[in-house]
Amino acid sequence: MLEKLKEEVCAANLELVKRGLVISTWGNVSGRDPETGLIVIKPSGVAYSEMLPRDLPVVAPDGHTVEGSLRPSSDTPTHLALYSAFPGIGGITHTHSPLAVAFAQAGRPIPAYGTTHADCFPGPVPCTRRMTPEEIAGDYEYNTGLVIAETVREPGADMMRAVLVHSHGPFTWGPDAMASVDVAEILEAVAGMAINTEILMTAGEMPQMQRELLERHFYRKHGKNAYYGQSDG
Amino acid sequence: MLEKLKEEVCAANLELVKRGLVISTWGNVSGRDPETGLIVIKPSGVAYSEMLPRDLPVVAPDGHTVEGSLRPSSDTPTHLALYSAFPGIGGITHTHSPLAVAFAQAGRPIPAYGTTHADCFPGPVPCTRRMTPEEIAGDYEYNTGLVIAETVREPGADMMRAVLVHSHGPFTWGPDAMASVDVAEILEAVAGMAINTEILMTAGEMPQMQRELLERHFYRKHGKNAYYGQSDG
Amino acid sequence: MLEKLKEEVCAANLELVKRGLVISTWGNVSGRDPETGLIVIKPSGVAYSEMLPRDLPVVAPDGHTVEGSLRPSSDTPTHLALYSAFPGIGGITHTHSPLAVAFAQAGRPIPAYGTTHADCFPGPVPCTRRMTPEEIAGDYEYNTGLVIAETVREPGADMMRAVLVHSHGPFTWGPDAMASVDVAEILEAVAGMAINTEILMTAGEMPQMQRELLERHFYRKHGKNAYYGQSDG
Amino acid sequence: MLEKLKEEVCAANLELVKRGLVISTWGNVSGRDPETGLIVIKPSGVAYSEMLPRDLPVVAPDGHTVEGSLRPSSDTPTHLALYSAFPGIGGITHTHSPLAVAFAQAGRPIPAYGTTHADCFPGPVPCTRRMTPEEIAGDYEYNTGLVIAETVREPGADMMRAVLVHSHGPFTWGPDAMASVDVAEILEAVAGMAINTEILMTAGEMPQMQRELLERHFYRKHGKNAYYGQSDG
Repeated sequence: MLEKLKEEVCAANLELVKRGLVISTWGNVSGRDPETGLIVIKPSGVAYSEMLPRDLPVVAPDGHTVEGSLRPSSDTPTHLALYSAFPGIGGITHTHSPLAVAFAQAGRPIPAYGTTHADCFPGPVPCTRRMTPEEIAGDYEYNTGLVIAETVREPGADMMRAVLVHSHGPFTWGPDAMASVDVAEILEAVAGMAINTEILMTAGEMPQMQRELLERHFYRKHGKNAYYGQSDG
Repeated sequence: MLEKLKEEVCAANLELVKRGLVISTWGNVSGRDPETGLIVIKPSGVAYSEMLPRDLPVVAPDGHTVEGSLRPSSDTPTHLALYSAFPGIGGITHTHSPLAVAFAQAGRPIPAYGTTHADCFPGPVPCTRRMTPEEIAGDYEYNTGLVIAETVREPGADMMRAVLVHSHGPFTWGPDAMASVDVAEILEAVAGMAINTEILMTAGEMPQMQRELLERHFYRKHGKNAYYGQSDG
Repeated sequence: MLEKLKEEVCAANLELVKRGLVISTWGNVSGRDPETGLIVIKPSGVAYSEMLPRDLPVVAPDGHTVEGSLRPSSDTPTHLALYSAFPGIGGITHTHSPLAVAFAQAGRPIPAYGTTHADCFPGPVPCTRRMTPEEIAGDYEYNTGLVIAETVREPGADMMRAVLVHSHGPFTWGPDAMASVDVAEILEAVAGMAINTEILMTAGEMPQMQRELLERHFYRKHGKNAYYGQSDG
Repeated sequence: MLEKLKEEVCAANLELVKRGLVISTWGNVSGRDPETGLIVIKPSGVAYSEMLPRDLPVVAPDGHTVEGSLRPSSDTPTHLALYSAFPGIGGITHTHSPLAVAFAQAGRPIPAYGTTHADCFPGPVPCTRRMTPEEIAGDYEYNTGLVIAETVREPGADMMRAVLVHSHGPFTWGPDAMASVDVAEILEAVAGMAINTEILMTAGEMPQMQRELLERHFYRKHGKNAYYGQSDG
């Protein structure tokens, strides 16, 4: 069942590796079938290099496995909670991409510092509150989804397609599985730009090089007295 | 029409991916035909992996599409404004390469800290002023080009072949499309060197390792008592 | 002898290169045969690109080479000390992966800042004390193993599968050679996340971009007035 | 003439690209023929992808080109000055590898923070003084070699096989061309480790994650109650 969705979700999972967003068996992508509401998701702890579409379990919204012999990702309850909270979405990606994780570990939203951010996100990418000991001891993965939903309620999951889970890492979503991977990739890029922006705003300009040396180098490659490279004739 | 220019500009766009300067559909390269003044540019939002020379639209200096069924890059008016302001150039590249973007987001020029910078740029790479709300609300992309032209007027586009647009990212140019990609690549490298230079100037030297340990390691690999690797005989 | 173990250990050594954990001839992986207690380890100073399973020396727990014409890794005594101290393990990896090394050079444990860390390590990854001049001048490599064992005694090598040797770099272990490589890869990822987390906790949030610019960019790509990309029809 | 040396030097130049030490046409490697004292070096401004052994010019110690139609690297006089000052060496590499350049631009030696450094260098890698306006205006590239020789006199070029030229970048050397590339690669790795070491020594440890969350994650993957991955049977 849902063979086409399994292919899409498998391809989206493999993109995580190709785009450098995961190592090991980290990360997972799921997709939702709009007609039945069933979810296809990465199996737990399976090597990406060995993953085939037919290996992907099909899970019902209540969490029981409808098809598939492999156990679904241990993060499946988080996905289910998000699909329940965000009826407009069709795909979810979770990674431990390192720069988005750094913001999550610092417990900080990713500020909107530039147009790369603004092209995808309508404001800072929010970070959830810390979970309570009770939420952690209880149905932890499902509670993770509830805390995400609480955090994204404003401005809404159709506007803000990413969140950082405090001390954990990013979840992203979109109309389908591959779209959620695209957002995960953009989020990682934007996180890296933000870190370096803060470094540069903190540091400020230092004394520059000698003017004589600058001109020597510029004019040995440019202008009529250049002597770098081969002569044109 | 302009088949050769389309091939050059397509190849230059694909170089952005090969050199790690773009992800997703970010970035765009254009080239100008010196005889007709027509522009060939990347189509908007098309995947690099599917781009062919024949897909590239041809645009007139006044902005109307002369040939091609795909919509040109949304940044086309910026390119047109620059070609108008800088008659000596034949190619323009725009990227969101992360380290140049970090300087743009910090609203800082890239200082000239060393000869790698000086080999390409005759001074700090300038950053534009912030655009006004009116410039943003109006013909935004064209106004972006005007602000760049204003920023580069001194020292002139033939001397300074790059700029950072405030809170946005780099534009670079040169005699042809591929030359503008070369400058974009150098700019990104120079931005990275500058960030780390500032970190090192701020931090300063820390206590070094134990002398005994240093010598133990050096002499286990070097000199007559070395015991690392295979014996020569 | 031990042909299967040699293949496993050779494959694990080659993974160090594939996963970007070593350059040059740096690093080494060993495996222990559970029946005989013999060790198979990388030969010293041999290029990874030329390494074959049959090149890997077999070493007895007392350090003498049982089989093989190549000299074993100069770090072999460290491995032997660890196998002796940690009877439950079957594989050891040593790398100079750069971010774990940065913590080792700073003489700092890697703090547990997030779930990526917690998925593998039950607390901060410890860093050994500095070795004494006597330990360095004496049987240095064997003493390195003793200092590691001293550091990991609590919480035990089955719980904590990695250590940083002060001013040196990481050692990791597991039930077999490849498992120890997996831990080395995770350790490097976790070290990078921790560095960036500390940068972000130190820096704090800076002023964000202009609201007008943010909205202009978000809405040129999203919503009913978007004009980025190709029209759908 | 010197066909074997040309092959060695060409291969060493191409390694600069393979090891990620150069972009564009940056960098150059030379080798010296021990019998004749003639130098084979990269031609100036030639693309690495098009370089063939027969393209490499042969240069005499006095600087005139003995064989080859292409102009030798503009840095050739620096190489010649170093071969003259260091009679024991047979190969020289110059790169603008970004992390070594950051130290050069900061005008700082690379401190010896750990055994990765000590395995190759017997102390901090020195940085030259700034060159005088007269040295820059005069025979600049040759004077660069003289300043390097002055800087490395103590501890000697056989002990210290690398230097940073102030506001410029690294030169490295060794018994042959490829050995000098090996040192350039190690230098870049060591520079990166040193930068991150200083960041970590400055920052210091931050508050760690919640203990409940750490244990939840560790024990969902480890021990008898683990529920991550597939069950073993």
